[in-house]
Amino acid sequence: MPVPAFDDVLAAAARIAPHVHRTPVMTSAHFDALTGAALFFKCENLQKVGAFKARGACNAVFGLDDATAARGVATHSSGNHAAALAYAAARRGIAATVVIPRNAPAAKLAAVRAYGGEIIECEPTLAAREATLAEFVAASGAEVVHPYNDARVIAGQATSALELLDELPDLDAIVAPIGGGGLISGTCVSVAGRAPGARVVGAEPAGADDAFRSREAGRMLPSENPQTVADGLRSSLGELTWHFVARDVDRILLAGDDEILDAMYLTWQRMKIIVEPSSAVALAVLLKHREQFAGQRVGVILSGGNVDLKNCPGCRG
Amino acid sequence: MPVPAFDDVLAAAARIAPHVHRTPVMTSAHFDALTGAALFFKCENLQKVGAFKARGACNAVFGLDDATAARGVATHSSGNHAAALAYAAARRGIAATVVIPRNAPAAKLAAVRAYGGEIIECEPTLAAREATLAEFVAASGAEVVHPYNDARVIAGQATSALELLDELPDLDAIVAPIGGGGLISGTCVSVAGRAPGARVVGAEPAGADDAFRSREAGRMLPSENPQTVADGLRSSLGELTWHFVARDVDRILLAGDDEILDAMYLTWQRMKIIVEPSSAVALAVLLKHREQFAGQRVGVILSGGNVDLKNCPGCRG
Repeated sequence: MPVPAFDDVLAAAARIAPHVHRTPVMTSAHFDALTGAALFFKCENLQKVGAFKARGACNAVFGLDDATAARGVATHSSGNHAAALAYAAARRGIAATVVIPRNAPAAKLAAVRAYGGEIIECEPTLAAREATLAEFVAASGAEVVHPYNDARVIAGQATSALELLDELPDLDAIVAPIGGGGLISGTCVSVAGRAPGARVVGAEPAGADDAFRSREAGRMLPSENPQTVADGLRSSLGELTWHFVARDVDRILLAGDDEILDAMYLTWQRMKIIVEPSSAVALAVLLKHREQFAGQRVGVILSGGNVDLKNCPGCRG
Repeated sequence: MPVPAFDDVLAAAARIAPHVHRTPVMTSAHFDALTGAALFFKCENLQKVGAFKARGACNAVFGLDDATAARGVATHSSGNHAAALAYAAARRGIAATVVIPRNAPAAKLAAVRAYGGEIIECEPTLAAREATLAEFVAASGAEVVHPYNDARVIAGQATSALELLDELPDLDAIVAPIGGGGLISGTCVSVAGRAPGARVVGAEPAGADDAFRSREAGRMLPSENPQTVADGLRSSLGELTWHFVARDVDRILLAGDDEILDAMYLTWQRMKIIVEPSSAVALAVLLKHREQFAGQRVGVILSGGNVDLKNCPGCRG
């Protein structure tokens, strides 16, 4: 499997520019005071489809030759990647088919349908997802775009950190959440290419700490029965993302679900932006381990903002 | 009472620049599709203290001579102006004292205290507010900065529309909410100075429609027993704001509380930003009266984002 290089990131940035937002970088005097650091929030919650996933999906879809593209694209995903692939395919005028587990949040299914994607539901296990997808691909010839274990996707996700470093070349560290590892892997590639002195810090839910445990064990361990409110971070690493997580990530910090939800509502309240729990884990580890960042300039990738407000009883979504 | 002119707005913009954000202008493909218009959202919810009120308060406070400033500033306000005045006073290093009715949202009181403002509580009537403030001013010599019926405040609020028109000089209309009328009055001054062909449209809750009724009657009517979820829009107009509302506002459109809350949650969900009900009324009237804006380029001033998340049972603020 090819490992994405920094040149692939630069190519991705040019390829996806017409299809994604250059997201803003926000600051917060309140969170700076709380942490003792200077924080720079890269707002992928304001990205197309509400998550950084639009970057990787667009890079994969717009990099296909015409003959391949004509057969459509397909994936399995618990959510944001599915909507992102449907979005990218719609922009190119090709079909997108998504295998989604039955327990996925309703808002995320609705998003896939809103972008014109086809949904095939399956049981909520990795085995069922893969079998259902393989069956569809055998019949259709569609190109599979994996949510994270794919060099094209990683190169696309890397463009978020690239933009952040273009604005702020002197960051001491960048903190990003780890689910399947696509975002943190891309961040590693961009940091190596643009700011090799900066540290890449992973943020993981304590209830889905497969990346943390994998590094402790020195080998890739699967995510088994993950229990966390951060529904985007329940995936296991893949071979390709484990390569970066093992080699280039400085450290992984953990936060519990209560800390993640506290950080999420605090972000809503103080920054006036909606982030989803999977994004809030980055701020949660910064607040919990603030002594590790005091006095530093720290980038924080707010990965997405797709919260199902129907789950918030006072919020009629 | 002096009427603010466009030169006062330009002076205000220069005076407050070091103390407030130049707020971003956001767009939304979703809301454009819903309304058939091209909408440009001026995000005062991302302003200092979470509302446009920082602009007017800073213009008033930083325009004082040193001797006057040394005696401090004071006001009565149901919320955002109070926090804004405390913020501005803290930036200048002077005292701010705020008379606040007992039924004000807890989050707004906490904000005043967080900026170092002193609070005097009173009964929730205009008469009690004015008497309590007069008593304090007689004793202290503090300078009163009215929340809206003040030329300095109006000139400050006008800088929001000024920035919007600097970026988008060819808008057909600007929609802004009407409470006491400071924001809409300032918007009228900036539109007259920069884009005299554009229409200024007021948005008011149906349950607090004193500006609408005043225009129908041809004379200023008070807000009597206002009933609306938009807590920032319950105030009556003042003489100075009635001057602009009567003369320069093209029309006033109304929306009910259900429509306001729908627009608010839709903004949270689709734009990933937190707006308060008093802001959402502008989008609510656009959605309700979309036929009046189809095909046009419309600025929308999202006035603030200070929602008490504790009132949202699923949100532990």
